[in-house]
Amino acid sequence: MRLTSEQHLDGGVLEREFTLGEIPGILWTPASASPSTPAPLILLGHPPLGLRKMYPRLVARAQHSAADGFATATIELPGSGDRPRWPAAEQARADLRQAMAAGEPVSDEIVDALVLPLVDQAVPEWQAALDALLSLPEIGGPVGYSGGVISIGIRLAVVEPRVSAAVLFAGSFVPRALFEEARQVSIPLHVLLQWDDEGNNRQAALDLFDVFGSREKSLHAHLGGHAGVPQFAGDAAAQFFARHLK
Amino acid sequence: MRLTSEQHLDGGVLEREFTLGEIPGILWTPASASPSTPAPLILLGHPPLGLRKMYPRLVARAQHSAADGFATATIELPGSGDRPRWPAAEQARADLRQAMAAGEPVSDEIVDALVLPLVDQAVPEWQAALDALLSLPEIGGPVGYSGGVISIGIRLAVVEPRVSAAVLFAGSFVPRALFEEARQVSIPLHVLLQWDDEGNNRQAALDLFDVFGSREKSLHAHLGGHAGVPQFAGDAAAQFFARHLK
Repeated sequence: MRLTSEQHLDGGVLEREFTLGEIPGILWTPASASPSTPAPLILLGHPPLGLRKMYPRLVARAQHSAADGFATATIELPGSGDRPRWPAAEQARADLRQAMAAGEPVSDEIVDALVLPLVDQAVPEWQAALDALLSLPEIGGPVGYSGGVISIGIRLAVVEPRVSAAVLFAGSFVPRALFEEARQVSIPLHVLLQWDDEGNNRQAALDLFDVFGSREKSLHAHLGGHAGVPQFAGDAAAQFFARHLK
Repeated sequence: MRLTSEQHLDGGVLEREFTLGEIPGILWTPASASPSTPAPLILLGHPPLGLRKMYPRLVARAQHSAADGFATATIELPGSGDRPRWPAAEQARADLRQAMAAGEPVSDEIVDALVLPLVDQAVPEWQAALDALLSLPEIGGPVGYSGGVISIGIRLAVVEPRVSAAVLFAGSFVPRALFEEARQVSIPLHVLLQWDDEGNNRQAALDLFDVFGSREKSLHAHLGGHAGVPQFAGDAAAQFFARHLK
């Protein structure tokens, strides 16, 4: 991991950009984080729209988490932002847009083509980022994962034992294969669902919540569309992490 | 309203029993409540099992609310506790038990017979209790309603303008007529659902959440059976009231 820039934000939060090989990322640490009092870490997931576009929302989440004593970090997803485009994924996105514009059901084939390669490539990258981040003396465990592409969160929860709690956002297409993996998830889960999410199948989200294997799981559904998660829902998610990561 | 007894509980909470005509009730006020700083009030709903049986859970909810500065009050439901039995309701309960024991679906007729007369009689009683409670100088508005028979909460939210926020527990049978009334509810709602509630139809609970007319409504589903609402869910409900009643 190579630190490429740093700046101080409001509230004493230190923002550092880094690269991990070809992958850009950002790390935020609260003023309280030090080698003698390392901060627990939350990985900030995000949709595949590019870190630069997502930055305003990411930094707001980072600031909120820092106020609770958490470090946060994120990396660019494969095929997004400045990373090389991915012809197969571009094709799947085009197929998705076409099906939705035509009012047709989105087929399992399109969802698989859209999501499975992304999960297969992204998850080892988040694990590599975790290796690098946890080697910093001011960052400690335990680790949480929050938001973004829910299928990445599911796979990470299954394969990465250092992730010990997750806030998942039921707001994107989930391949059938990931429903099977969801049964193997055993960490505490706090699942957010926007009740009127235009691009989301509500029943599929409820079915997915049902199959998670975790003994502590809760679903928090709020009125409104994809981007309408209310402020108090963020506060509740923060309390979930405070219960499980401290 | 006639106050019949009073005792001081831990934390400076004052518990007063009262009768309202034939109806027994209990009022809890935090130490902070006074004529110069009247406490907002939360009405504590409960299932029709009798106040005496429900007392341990009610006093725990009262103590939790008092710590947040709320007064709480409850009254006995018609046909419960020491109040006169109600032959038609007893028959409906017997029919319900028989249908459930036989593994048969519970018919709309049974649900209507069980719930509609209870709602029709209980709601004006809760309104009369509200009149009496709000005449006490140490109790102020706004008023919340929490838990108990969800159909009573729905009707009260529609007909009683002094109730300005409600925590509802999706854990009992709801007549079709109340689904229609639910469309008219416009106050903020925080709805709790136990995902594995033995005696509850999950899909009906989700359908009910969907039809509520409120612009702010959220559903909080937790793993476990009817009585397994986790502690942190109570904390979240308390935060909902703190947002809306203060």
